[in-house]
Amino acid sequence: MADPRFYPEAQPISIADIAELARGEKARGCSSLMARFIGAPDAMAEGGLCFIATKDAAETVPDQKGVICLVAPELADKLPSSVAIVVTPDPKRAFGLVMRKMYPEPAPIQSQQISPLAHIADDAVIADDVRVDGGAFIDARAELGKGVWIKSGVKIGAGCVIGDGTVIDSNASIDYAIIGQSCQIGAGVVIGGCGFGVGRDGGNILLPHLGKVIIGNRTTIGGNSCIDRGFIDDTVIGDHVMIDNLVHIAHNAKIGNGNVICGQVGIAGSTVIGDQNIFGAQAGVADHVTIGSGNVFAARAGVTKSVGDGQVMAGFPAVPALEFRREVATLRRLAMPRKK
Amino acid sequence: MADPRFYPEAQPISIADIAELARGEKARGCSSLMARFIGAPDAMAEGGLCFIATKDAAETVPDQKGVICLVAPELADKLPSSVAIVVTPDPKRAFGLVMRKMYPEPAPIQSQQISPLAHIADDAVIADDVRVDGGAFIDARAELGKGVWIKSGVKIGAGCVIGDGTVIDSNASIDYAIIGQSCQIGAGVVIGGCGFGVGRDGGNILLPHLGKVIIGNRTTIGGNSCIDRGFIDDTVIGDHVMIDNLVHIAHNAKIGNGNVICGQVGIAGSTVIGDQNIFGAQAGVADHVTIGSGNVFAARAGVTKSVGDGQVMAGFPAVPALEFRREVATLRRLAMPRKK
Amino acid sequence: MADPRFYPEAQPISIADIAELARGEKARGCSSLMARFIGAPDAMAEGGLCFIATKDAAETVPDQKGVICLVAPELADKLPSSVAIVVTPDPKRAFGLVMRKMYPEPAPIQSQQISPLAHIADDAVIADDVRVDGGAFIDARAELGKGVWIKSGVKIGAGCVIGDGTVIDSNASIDYAIIGQSCQIGAGVVIGGCGFGVGRDGGNILLPHLGKVIIGNRTTIGGNSCIDRGFIDDTVIGDHVMIDNLVHIAHNAKIGNGNVICGQVGIAGSTVIGDQNIFGAQAGVADHVTIGSGNVFAARAGVTKSVGDGQVMAGFPAVPALEFRREVATLRRLAMPRKK
Repeated sequence: MADPRFYPEAQPISIADIAELARGEKARGCSSLMARFIGAPDAMAEGGLCFIATKDAAETVPDQKGVICLVAPELADKLPSSVAIVVTPDPKRAFGLVMRKMYPEPAPIQSQQISPLAHIADDAVIADDVRVDGGAFIDARAELGKGVWIKSGVKIGAGCVIGDGTVIDSNASIDYAIIGQSCQIGAGVVIGGCGFGVGRDGGNILLPHLGKVIIGNRTTIGGNSCIDRGFIDDTVIGDHVMIDNLVHIAHNAKIGNGNVICGQVGIAGSTVIGDQNIFGAQAGVADHVTIGSGNVFAARAGVTKSVGDGQVMAGFPAVPALEFRREVATLRRLAMPRKK
Repeated sequence: MADPRFYPEAQPISIADIAELARGEKARGCSSLMARFIGAPDAMAEGGLCFIATKDAAETVPDQKGVICLVAPELADKLPSSVAIVVTPDPKRAFGLVMRKMYPEPAPIQSQQISPLAHIADDAVIADDVRVDGGAFIDARAELGKGVWIKSGVKIGAGCVIGDGTVIDSNASIDYAIIGQSCQIGAGVVIGGCGFGVGRDGGNILLPHLGKVIIGNRTTIGGNSCIDRGFIDDTVIGDHVMIDNLVHIAHNAKIGNGNVICGQVGIAGSTVIGDQNIFGAQAGVADHVTIGSGNVFAARAGVTKSVGDGQVMAGFPAVPALEFRREVATLRRLAMPRKK
Repeated sequence: MADPRFYPEAQPISIADIAELARGEKARGCSSLMARFIGAPDAMAEGGLCFIATKDAAETVPDQKGVICLVAPELADKLPSSVAIVVTPDPKRAFGLVMRKMYPEPAPIQSQQISPLAHIADDAVIADDVRVDGGAFIDARAELGKGVWIKSGVKIGAGCVIGDGTVIDSNASIDYAIIGQSCQIGAGVVIGGCGFGVGRDGGNILLPHLGKVIIGNRTTIGGNSCIDRGFIDDTVIGDHVMIDNLVHIAHNAKIGNGNVICGQVGIAGSTVIGDQNIFGAQAGVADHVTIGSGNVFAARAGVTKSVGDGQVMAGFPAVPALEFRREVATLRRLAMPRKK
């Protein structure tokens, strides 16, 4: 159950409404049954809602009236007989939608709330319903759109644009950036730092970087990730990209829409990435390669060459996942001590 | 010698007291001999204390009266004849205890010290002897226990609880978290960010996360590490866990007591880890695996499957370290160019 | 073209001056021709300056009068006939120098600018022309040299020294550190955190760390990187070291001059590194190893043993790059399914 220290009381929802949100079907249970809290399968009690992802999970649900389970068709018959059931093809996603309904986002900001402990440059352009918390620093000519929330300690550099409804979490540092609408930028994120472009000539020099960072709409970035600004042109991140914690995206990268980038991934400079790829945790992509769309890169994959579309890649240097598994098995076999 | 710019003058300690703290034995030297500073073996002079971990280190100690060396039994006879000796099985640990005695922690905070540049919500609950530095932001209903020190720029989110004696270093961002007593949370740490739970259905959605983060007592977290909050239930970290810099711990992970997690490690979602394991630098653990207790994972180990107790694992996918070394050697041999 | 939201208008520069800065030769074009903006090769128009690194790039330049290209000798004849040409051995580096001329660094700070929202300890020592932005926290006895700029939310711990002309970007946390002149410290960087020195004896203890961090001149550190302070002696980073984002440098490391350390690299404790090495992204170096000068470590290299000078190393455990490539090729061959 969501801890009342942190979350408001849930708004109850009927099994009929759950089935509709889930694009699913009520398979068992009284139509007027209400879910009043969410929880894990083994924590279910009367009024509870859970989702079932595995047979093992199904078996932990108590055999109790008044419990509602979101479940895929093939697991429905593993549930105890007393629980109510909504059958849906993707129970976890459906659960997410119901959670959002039961625990709605806080109401939008109604009026400007600027902390007296925040610094706002005289020529910053701030919409009527923006909130800026203490310790934040909004520099010259920055523009904050409608409903933007700048949390404590955030720096918004000169000239930056933050689109409507975007939330910048505490202690993020944003420079040289145009950020779209309804983005969630995590705490401690650094956007717009100088790209790591090194010239060598009897000693290294860090090249000046005169580009910027452009981020689309509904993109989320996890805590302490870093996105550098471009060298001459820009670092560009599309719409609805999901970036986890501690990810590094270098100067001039172009990342399309709908990509999922897991924790501690690194994307090197000037790499171009299409849409809807998944990058597993701790993966890396070399500089100046081109990656298509719809690929899956396993955790730790180290991508050193360009990749087309729809591949599943693994290993370092990354190869098709099947080859990687064959290589692992081959080496294991060859290294096995001979029986005497 | 500890730089007086940063550290107070040492409190002298007698060789007898050193031997007692070290649970060791004075093997050579006058009982009234005092250590007045600490340093590396090759920087020893009259009044100095060092510890000896290797034969090479032993040989760098100057042959000088008034020097005290903490040393393991097997290296005692490598030291020059003039130095005083305390023999102890773990000289480095003993040295740590003596250091703490010579350079005690700063005295506890005696009275409330709240910076006028900090934001404290009206309904935050703050013990009498709490210190909160400038630029910090303490949100609604947050609770700060006795002797808590919130350094500059820290954000403590609504409802968070910080246990007695815990120190939160500068610019950390804490949300949705219950943190125990006597913890040290590093600068720039992000606790309680939204877990990276992705639902897919004609486009990715970042699932709402309604869990929290629970951290036990005496746990330390290094700079810029990230710990996400749980999805439905909680991310839990036990007592006396030691986490280094830039570590990523994902939503719903359960990490037992006494684990040591080195720099840049990543622990994926919903993984369950027992007690007293060691994770070498840049290691990774996949999601939904179960790890027992007392294991050692080498640097860069990539753990993809559940592991029992007391194993030493290495490589990616991780295997017993012996197998990993055999695989490395086998490949090296097979790849060697044939002699003609 | 540099976005006027973020960058001032360029100062025009003549092709003759470009050739001089580039230590190159004007090979084609009127001497009075001026560059008035910079851009990518395919974005060139009258008054534009670009550099040409590849044959492909050369072919994207429009055949247009009034365009100036910096180009290496071997690519000069790939450019269209109307463009003006300056031939130089390292066009990218030359371009960087010209960029710096056309878009000079902002004028040095002329007078002390201390935000009323910054905390400055009474006994901090601050030069006349220092700038300190809102939310910054300058602790006791800290010293800020001439022309230092402390951006918003930065913490400068007690006793720290920041050399002339150094810029500390937003939300960095600096403790126990002596930093040289003309350094650029990135946003969110953590310097001087407690080293991760663990003693084991029936339970782990985090050893007290009484060392500091010393950083030379003209060193740059990327966003959210962490550098721990030493245990007894110091963590030392030389002059003109270039460190990218999310890099972890552990306690007591000694890093010489001119090293280039790419994103997400980890350098473990007490390791000693010479001068002018390059560490590719996500590389790691084990603790207590010694590395000479002029080496190149490929991305993901995991260095487990000491290395001399001038090597090119790759893989984990790292071996000469040639061996690594041979190992990769050998395994690929051995794992290939047999033809039937």
